[in-house]
Amino acid sequence: MVERLSESEISSALMALKGWKLREDGLAITRSLQFSDFAEAFGFMTRVAILAEKADHHPEWFNVYNKVEITLTTHDASGLSERDVALAKQIDAAA
Amino acid sequence: MVERLSESEISSALMALKGWKLREDGLAITRSLQFSDFAEAFGFMTRVAILAEKADHHPEWFNVYNKVEITLTTHDASGLSERDVALAKQIDAAA
Repeated sequence: MVERLSESEISSALMALKGWKLREDGLAITRSLQFSDFAEAFGFMTRVAILAEKADHHPEWFNVYNKVEITLTTHDASGLSERDVALAKQIDAAA
Repeated sequence: MVERLSESEISSALMALKGWKLREDGLAITRSLQFSDFAEAFGFMTRVAILAEKADHHPEWFNVYNKVEITLTTHDASGLSERDVALAKQIDAAA
């Protein structure tokens, strides 16, 4: 079982991240990214896929051409946990 | 400009494909796939990404863990074209 973050923990986490928004229901964070083309976008996704697999924590994501929309949530916590924040930081570093 | 397929061309194409459905608005085809885990799902996506880049025709797709949902449409044709059918066949072969 993974512990769910409190509202104040989420607020501090969002301040330390780049371009992430809290989803309306408060249970996930999302970030939209745009690249120069598909190859750049998918190259980024490949880096994130490897980081996610290593962390054993996986994104929900959508891609069309040069755009990538990422949603992070922790099903075991029924909301946001430290695992989402940790992966979001890695994604920011990869972007 | 790419030519849009007629309804009868779409029907014949769907019969030749595996598990693709016409989207409700008739302007796109979709297929949902499930793999054993994230690494398998993303490995499949990587093969499709390379095929898509070679064809210069890209999917709209969503992934969460072992599931992949793919949508194909041709913006230049405002609907379905031979390019979607050709990429769908390659995706079927990769799946």
